[in-house]
Amino acid sequence: MMKRGFVALLSGGLDSSTLLAYLLRKEVGNPIEALAVAYGQRHTRELKAASDIAQAFGVPLYQTHIDPSIFHNAESSQTNYSVAVPHGHYMDESMQVTVVPNRNMLLLSLAAARAISLGYDHIAYAAHAGDHAIYPDCRPQFAWKMAELLHICHFSPIYLETPFLRKTKADIVALGHQLDVPFHLTYSCYEGQPLHCGLCGTCVERHEAFTLAGLHDPTQYGPAAAATPQAAK
Amino acid sequence: MMKRGFVALLSGGLDSSTLLAYLLRKEVGNPIEALAVAYGQRHTRELKAASDIAQAFGVPLYQTHIDPSIFHNAESSQTNYSVAVPHGHYMDESMQVTVVPNRNMLLLSLAAARAISLGYDHIAYAAHAGDHAIYPDCRPQFAWKMAELLHICHFSPIYLETPFLRKTKADIVALGHQLDVPFHLTYSCYEGQPLHCGLCGTCVERHEAFTLAGLHDPTQYGPAAAATPQAAK
Repeated sequence: MMKRGFVALLSGGLDSSTLLAYLLRKEVGNPIEALAVAYGQRHTRELKAASDIAQAFGVPLYQTHIDPSIFHNAESSQTNYSVAVPHGHYMDESMQVTVVPNRNMLLLSLAAARAISLGYDHIAYAAHAGDHAIYPDCRPQFAWKMAELLHICHFSPIYLETPFLRKTKADIVALGHQLDVPFHLTYSCYEGQPLHCGLCGTCVERHEAFTLAGLHDPTQYGPAAAATPQAAK
Repeated sequence: MMKRGFVALLSGGLDSSTLLAYLLRKEVGNPIEALAVAYGQRHTRELKAASDIAQAFGVPLYQTHIDPSIFHNAESSQTNYSVAVPHGHYMDESMQVTVVPNRNMLLLSLAAARAISLGYDHIAYAAHAGDHAIYPDCRPQFAWKMAELLHICHFSPIYLETPFLRKTKADIVALGHQLDVPFHLTYSCYEGQPLHCGLCGTCVERHEAFTLAGLHDPTQYGPAAAATPQAAK
């Protein structure tokens, strides 16, 4: 039998960490599990952030993996390390190379499999308005269709929660601040080095979000950012 | 850039093997790859059948896996070996225990990731009318919603081919016979032993399909079937 419970995708970035804080506040008494997925991502450093965030929130974390060879023929900078991570603004067309083929459908399918196995009836992910331009699988149309599919994938409905679908990243950071998200533990950089590069699209977006929200950016940036005038810092 | 090409899910059973033969006949000149997935299934013997069928057809086979621990809490006879495989008719309610949580969404997500990585614009699976009663993710409603989701999961559409959605298993066997599918290489049994048990729902369905199609059943059944009057043989 299914009960009210959540499997929430947790990448260890700002958005999914804030989503987890949001669910913990909203779903008092209902079980929540975080799901992190290793898929050969260049920014595998994010998995440590996911673990740190789950631990900070006292939420159980289940980590699984996708065999990365499935992406080997794809020209994605995040799974094919011979393709350079583009630097610049996250809305630039050049950022399309960071797309991992069908990643969100894969991650949400895993989340639903895990939820059904646990007897939970909800899954959640932190798609938000800033992603829409570049990532087909972060758009509202995708989330809505996925919600319809999840509704009929099992004997009883699985519900998809996407509370940030219309929020900007600045909105999310402001909410995370209210919810005491330990932002210094989160990790966003596509370069995957120990410190954020400050130059890739996600670093630029991350820094911009703090600025727009009128908050101090607690991110530790590496030497490349310090040497580059236009970098996030 | 995407070109016309197919990634077809291949379990090594009658339906997916016939689907592959059907695509090979229909899509002359267009690339086709078969995809098999290890997910901790009790009937892992089917992966050898998938390999044998792909080899017999001269089709490249890509095999990947899902970490089976994602299903560990589920009461599925196919991933939790302490749950017995039900014997009897495949339409019986008792067969619900053979459902693997969200399996088809997972497999189709992997197929789409692989297709996009290869630059192919189609994926295919062999959902058919006999599955509808038991498996939510074999129903036409599921296939249609999945098709809509695949249409928008990438920058250009991914198309879902399900030519057997309204066919019975007997129809499929009759088609496979016309297409010279080497049925003796296929494997369907949920018990997962070297020879088909003849007693589980899939064995019963398999044998019934040959009978209804008026064809000889080339399946080799094990000793349990020979000792049981009502078994497929």
